[in-house]
This record gives sequence, structure tokens and C-alpha cells, in this order.
Amino acid sequence: MSQRLDAQMAFLMEADKLKQVLRATTLADGTRAENSGEHSWHIALFALVLGADAPADVSVERVIKMLLLHDIVEIDAGDTPIFADHDASAQAAKEAAAATRLFGLLPPDQAASFRALWDEFEAAQTPDARFAKSLDRFQPPNQNLAAGGGSWVSYETRYETFEARVGTKIKRGAPWLWDWLQPKAEAWFAARGKL
Amino acid sequence: MSQRLDAQMAFLMEADKLKQVLRATTLADGTRAENSGEHSWHIALFALVLGADAPADVSVERVIKMLLLHDIVEIDAGDTPIFADHDASAQAAKEAAAATRLFGLLPPDQAASFRALWDEFEAAQTPDARFAKSLDRFQPPNQNLAAGGGSWVSYETRYETFEARVGTKIKRGAPWLWDWLQPKAEAWFAARGKL
Repeated sequence: MSQRLDAQMAFLMEADKLKQVLRATTLADGTRAENSGEHSWHIALFALVLGADAPADVSVERVIKMLLLHDIVEIDAGDTPIFADHDASAQAAKEAAAATRLFGLLPPDQAASFRALWDEFEAAQTPDARFAKSLDRFQPPNQNLAAGGGSWVSYETRYETFEARVGTKIKRGAPWLWDWLQPKAEAWFAARGKL
Repeated sequence: MSQRLDAQMAFLMEADKLKQVLRATTLADGTRAENSGEHSWHIALFALVLGADAPADVSVERVIKMLLLHDIVEIDAGDTPIFADHDASAQAAKEAAAATRLFGLLPPDQAASFRALWDEFEAAQTPDARFAKSLDRFQPPNQNLAAGGGSWVSYETRYETFEARVGTKIKRGAPWLWDWLQPKAEAWFAARGKL
């Protein structure tokens, strides 16, 4: 038992480092960059609130577990801003290696089940993973709107890029959230000549 | 539906402010104070990992939901450091008013169910609430040990105060976690003449 707990605590204390991984998105008041630890809490809360209206084949409890784990790999692989250009296959390889190291700190049964949940999230093929991915894309634009632009300003984003990289993924797992957000986002880009 | 989503989003965007409530505990590397948003993520992750070995009458899923919500009231009422002296009944009244305002932003069905979950956590009488409270007390000493003392140093804490304010609450809902932590903590206080 003590050896099992040693392994669980090694993982949980390593996870503390996610609080120091900074994202391109700011807090809603724009005062500082958001970190991936507090982001993970916030979107798990999004799942708890918005999951009540998700399709019946979505398990809110599984989605919350996925979201608590979804960014852990950034401790080794860093955050990839959605509007930055990057080598997707190199980043995927870094994240897979990070998952092997980080989940590997856990007792074998938990290492396997957490890795399976993270793989499911990444593949985005099941109803739970699609909804989880939609929430991961839905939270940042709301913070950008509140902050006066946030990462849309720093990356000089145009509406069509936003719709392609963010909108399509929100729509896939949570079309009612896209319907709510889209006119607000379009108005923001239109007002700045970025349609 | 849109009115319901407006209310859900008003709550979720107000919740963003929890990322700016600072705690007495530092990150594990001691570089800065932890905020209550990232703390909430971290202990939900503690529940996911350590809940697997909790007593059978504990629902890990309910505990995670409780922990995602447990500190929301600090947006209005602030954090109360465990080793600071404070007026407990005045703080409880502030937190109850905060719960009324913050959960009141939600649609009525969710306002009621979230408030009930928060009240259950605060009362600490059910197996889920006791385990959740134990995790809330178990995470900070681990960060203090990693950081070379953290809030134990800033509050000049002695071992008997730590055992009374922290140990008894960990033991109540998660005795196996106290058995694991106690010798490590006692050794830290002993080495500094604080037994």
C-alpha cells in the first residue's frame, strides 16, 4: 500500500508543474496569461455546468476526468497556441513521450487507465472526447471577448482562421455552444475589420 | 435555451476570478503563492488518483464535483489561511452570502443542486464530504514539504498546531493518507525544533 501511495504521490507532485505552463489566452480581465492548471479547473467546471445539456450519450463524469488530465503532457511538451504555426507531428510525438513518462509515474493499473483516457481525448472520436474537445475550444474565445481580444490580438487572428481552427471543433461536439458564441465572435472581428 | 446558457455563462465567467484569489500555500517549488483556481484543479486530480483507494461508500465522481466547486465562495469571501486566526462565524456568514450570490447566477435547477453540494462539503458529515475535506487538507502540507516549509514557515507553525488543524481532518476522511504523511511532517518540525 505504501509503495502504491508513493507512486500516486510522485505523479501528483509532478503534476504541480502544470501550474507554471503558460497559455496564449489571458484571464478574462486580461491582466496576465492563464496557466494550464487553472485552465484545466475552469473547463472541468464548464463540463459540470454545460454537460447537463449535452447529448444523452455523453457522460459528464468521464468528460470531467478527461479534462482534469488533458493538459498534463504540457509539463514536458509545453502548450501549443492554437493560432501559432507549428509542426503538428513533432508536437504529437513530444506529447506521446510526455504521456509515457508522466502517467508512468503512477501504479500500473492507473497508468494504463489514465493513458487510455488521454488517448481517447486526443483521438476525439467518442462522444465524450468530442464534447471534451469542444469545451477546450469554447472557453478561450469567451475569455478573449471579455479581455478585449486576448490571443486574437496577439496573433492578429482573422475571423476565417478562428472559424477554421476553433469554430469547427466547438461545433462538432457542442453545436449549441457554437450557435451561442458565433454571433458574438463575428461581431468582434467585424468591428475590427478582420472578417 | 439561450436564456439558460446566458445564465450558465454568467456563472462560468464570474468563476474566472477564482484564479486571482491567492492562498497562503506556495507552489511545490516555492516560487509563488498558489491560487484557488489551480488548487481546485490539483485536488480534483488528487481525488481522481487517491479516490481509487477510498472506502467503498465514497463516490469519486461526487467528490470531484464538490472539489471543483468548494472554493468558489472565495471570489467574494477571500481565502482563510488555516494557520491564521480569524472570526470563524463572521467568515461562515460571508461565505454563505457568497454562495447565494454566485450559485444564484446559474439557472434555478443548477443553483439548487450546486448549493446543496457545497453545503454538504461544508457540513463534512457524509462520506463524500469527509473525504473531500481530507484531500483539501492533505495537498498543502505536501507542497510545504516540497517547498522547504511554505506556509509553516510564514506562520511559524508548531507541530501540535499542524496536527490539530490539519492532521485531525485528514485522518477523519482518509486515515491512510495521514499515516503516510505524519512521519514526514513530524520529521520536518522536529528538525527545526518545532515539536
